[in-house]
Amino acid sequence: MKTDVQIAQESNMKPIKEIAEGLGLGKEDLELYGDYKAKVSLDVLKEKENNPDGKLILVTAINPTPAGEGKTTMNIGLSMALNKIGKTAISALREPSLGPSFGIKGGAAGGGYAQVVPMEDINLHFTGDIHAITTAHNLLSALLDNHLHQGNELGIDPRRIVWKRVVDLNDRALRNIVVGLGGKAHGVPREDGFDITVASEIMAILALANDLEDLKKRLGNILVAYNYDGEPVYARDLKAEGSLTLLLKDAIEPNLVQTLENTPAFIHCGPFANIAHGCNSVLATKMSLKLAEYTVTEAGFGADLGAEKFFDIKCRFADLKPDAAVIVATVRALKLHGGVSKTELNEENLEALKAGFENLEKHIENVKSYGVPAVVAINHFPTDTEKELELVFNKCEELGVEVVHSEVWAKGGEGGIELAKKVVEVVENTPSKFKMLYDENATIVDKIEKISKDIYGADEVDFTQKARKDIEQIEKLNLDKMPICMAKTQYSLSDNPQLLGRPEGFKITVREIKISAGAKFLVALTGDVMTMPGLPKVPAANNMDITEDGKIKGLF
Amino acid sequence: MKTDVQIAQESNMKPIKEIAEGLGLGKEDLELYGDYKAKVSLDVLKEKENNPDGKLILVTAINPTPAGEGKTTMNIGLSMALNKIGKTAISALREPSLGPSFGIKGGAAGGGYAQVVPMEDINLHFTGDIHAITTAHNLLSALLDNHLHQGNELGIDPRRIVWKRVVDLNDRALRNIVVGLGGKAHGVPREDGFDITVASEIMAILALANDLEDLKKRLGNILVAYNYDGEPVYARDLKAEGSLTLLLKDAIEPNLVQTLENTPAFIHCGPFANIAHGCNSVLATKMSLKLAEYTVTEAGFGADLGAEKFFDIKCRFADLKPDAAVIVATVRALKLHGGVSKTELNEENLEALKAGFENLEKHIENVKSYGVPAVVAINHFPTDTEKELELVFNKCEELGVEVVHSEVWAKGGEGGIELAKKVVEVVENTPSKFKMLYDENATIVDKIEKISKDIYGADEVDFTQKARKDIEQIEKLNLDKMPICMAKTQYSLSDNPQLLGRPEGFKITVREIKISAGAKFLVALTGDVMTMPGLPKVPAANNMDITEDGKIKGLF
Repeated sequence: MKTDVQIAQESNMKPIKEIAEGLGLGKEDLELYGDYKAKVSLDVLKEKENNPDGKLILVTAINPTPAGEGKTTMNIGLSMALNKIGKTAISALREPSLGPSFGIKGGAAGGGYAQVVPMEDINLHFTGDIHAITTAHNLLSALLDNHLHQGNELGIDPRRIVWKRVVDLNDRALRNIVVGLGGKAHGVPREDGFDITVASEIMAILALANDLEDLKKRLGNILVAYNYDGEPVYARDLKAEGSLTLLLKDAIEPNLVQTLENTPAFIHCGPFANIAHGCNSVLATKMSLKLAEYTVTEAGFGADLGAEKFFDIKCRFADLKPDAAVIVATVRALKLHGGVSKTELNEENLEALKAGFENLEKHIENVKSYGVPAVVAINHFPTDTEKELELVFNKCEELGVEVVHSEVWAKGGEGGIELAKKVVEVVENTPSKFKMLYDENATIVDKIEKISKDIYGADEVDFTQKARKDIEQIEKLNLDKMPICMAKTQYSLSDNPQLLGRPEGFKITVREIKISAGAKFLVALTGDVMTMPGLPKVPAANNMDITEDGKIKGLF
Repeated sequence: MKTDVQIAQESNMKPIKEIAEGLGLGKEDLELYGDYKAKVSLDVLKEKENNPDGKLILVTAINPTPAGEGKTTMNIGLSMALNKIGKTAISALREPSLGPSFGIKGGAAGGGYAQVVPMEDINLHFTGDIHAITTAHNLLSALLDNHLHQGNELGIDPRRIVWKRVVDLNDRALRNIVVGLGGKAHGVPREDGFDITVASEIMAILALANDLEDLKKRLGNILVAYNYDGEPVYARDLKAEGSLTLLLKDAIEPNLVQTLENTPAFIHCGPFANIAHGCNSVLATKMSLKLAEYTVTEAGFGADLGAEKFFDIKCRFADLKPDAAVIVATVRALKLHGGVSKTELNEENLEALKAGFENLEKHIENVKSYGVPAVVAINHFPTDTEKELELVFNKCEELGVEVVHSEVWAKGGEGGIELAKKVVEVVENTPSKFKMLYDENATIVDKIEKISKDIYGADEVDFTQKARKDIEQIEKLNLDKMPICMAKTQYSLSDNPQLLGRPEGFKITVREIKISAGAKFLVALTGDVMTMPGLPKVPAANNMDITEDGKIKGLF
């Protein structure tokens, strides 16, 4: 069987100029990065202002399992299939982070015959967006530490700095560090730490910004520390917003690439789906809506985290109205949710599948509760039995939700035609009645309880003393009227990664609430949320290589 | 008067494709980064193998002073002037680091009417080379700390790790840090620190690599630590060279841009001129030699550090034979070397000028000692008096060296025509008899003494106990047969920045010798060498901005 990198290397890419032409974009709209990648000027949004918006399809999933669901692959496959049935479509996806690529995954640009290309570039430095974010983030850190060192006019309390540093790698040794050692000439000693760049608030800000002015304003609003009087210190107090915006002037433009079947794809921004909202950029999605009949976009992790934040954060800020959601599941993953062990996934097990289906059921209910029509897409595996598929189909029918079997990984767009037809049918016949879950002006407690009970299915929410103090502080700062970004394990509907399927009678514990004043949301932390992953015992990096003639190995 | 950024923004850039065509390069040789930047494929070196090499001109300078000498400006002006008199010429320059740009300088792409453009891009992320180096460097760090954490099979002594981390910013608080805190799950606690990226050995390696294979081999040879038995641990022991090379696959290609007058310019790699050799890449220089009659290249700081390393390190590894050297000086800087204070530079002072000229004299002698014909270029300032210029010209005549007055900053290529003519005359009439200063197989002590006495003019060299121990260790590792990279203050011919002019009777103290086994040189440290600068009280970043319509401020 061919690896992803082999399939990608054999693909027939078209010059990106041609792909852009197909969307009605001219040379003057593009900044080329080689022949197959381009940044698209934000002027396009003004030029195409009067175009009607196309349909917006969210691809989301059940709670992820080690079996893999293939959400990105399905997204890419669906856009290719829509093209095959005569609809113009664009995938709007997130940029992969280098950290996981060199750790476990080895790449994140779809898989099999449903990939975006040039996959090597997309998986490496791409057009430099993430590096620009790393640099902007760390420049703000440097300006802050320099301020401390140069007399600390703002009276910043070094024990209350909430702005860490970032690197786009998995590097656990940087989680907790002490900086400023070595004596008087070398800064002020204090505790610090690094997050992975995709967890940077600047990544979330760039993904949410509506234009350069909005970006600059949000960057200035980043809360970096408190002074000795307990008052907030913002990035604008350090006069940082101009230089930070300057560093992001190219990164703000959406990146255009293509799928293996030459369907256009925007790949732009990739904020973490726990500490941030986990969606590709507002600007890419808006641009895509103006350029194609269908925009197929994605959100992080399962629908409890990803779709919720897509609806309640991204759609809120960008005034988007999703027309349908595709919920991806696999028979194998549902069996895992039903209690089967990883080693027994190849055997038919209808009981486990039935039990595990409840996870999918809850996500279907959730998506519907937003007024958005849902389609379930079962991502095919060779081990799926007919009886298993029949069970899933019958169950979906009982719930009154459309369900389709899909083989985009093995067959590309061809394998997703049925799904594409179903999506078009649903969109054309079932108008979306999209509404957000909560009013952002509600109290913090109300907003968190609403998400926890309605979406996760919790009985109650427990706020630790720390969290209650945080709420008090946030209200005092008048920053409480912002949407909530839940930071929760992706593996369960609850905050306990062990509780698979559809847990009931559980409590969500909120232990801390962080302010992302620039991104304009409050992060409610439940359980342990990792913002800096570590490398495994044998990192993927160990097997990567490039030969003299340019052949790449180990990005699969 | 117009700022550099205003002049640059008003320039008439040609599409870089056209600039490349002028050099005989086709579309297939380029990877475009927008319309005005391109990476040039290394295949060009093979395609043009049979072209004769053009002439190689080094632009170097007296010891730098706060008055500024304008070495890069002169380099760019000379290449433009050569074009004006009918010679094809290319500038081969170094990439600017973001750290100093956001600190004091605000930009590093020449000045006035002798700039390379697009200067905003060149001064910001450019084509991402430095970000790629940062990432490769820190991936090696992460792999190392992960190895410690995952059982430490190689028995690495955490107290003897010599590989630090890097960030391309001025950030003094990161000079001395402790990583791996927070308990068992978060790595192994140890002392660490960050250098600025341009001080990374990987920057030096990329600048010296002859091709991708050479790059990979050098990366594998990086000495990262010692084990508990005192034996060396290399990057290859961590299986890092493949992934590091992969991260640098695009960065290894030279970047093509243009001057304000559409002269082609390669801007590629920018290693520190103290801890490393301070020259643009070997690959860019070699490519340039195949594409134009004249390649005008530069080296860091004054000729004592820059030219010496250019001759003894870069030319040695790349088998280059420089045809002439231009030594840049200003009347103001010479007066500073002669003891005038900064506030009195505007007044004529022939005595001080005469005393300060001795600094220039020593550099002229040094360049000649390599068998390379020299031309002195006096960079014009409006405060220069006729008598002052006359004195400098007479002095040069006494020394038998050509001297030219140049106004490239104010007039672009037009202001450098006399210099260009002189350079051509010298190159055509005085064949270079280039020879390196020392045999790399000499002992470490001999090599350092040779440089210190012959080039700096020292009476003796003092090796501290630590340095002697280092030498012993290096000899034991069989790594002593490599050229020396001196790390010395740039402000003086001696290792004391206070000793201006041409100091005599001084001693050079070598306090430590570091191994750059991948770059293949030994770094002899004298005095304090800063590998991570700090930000000033009011960083340049504070005044930077970009407006909604894309106008950039503060990069000047």
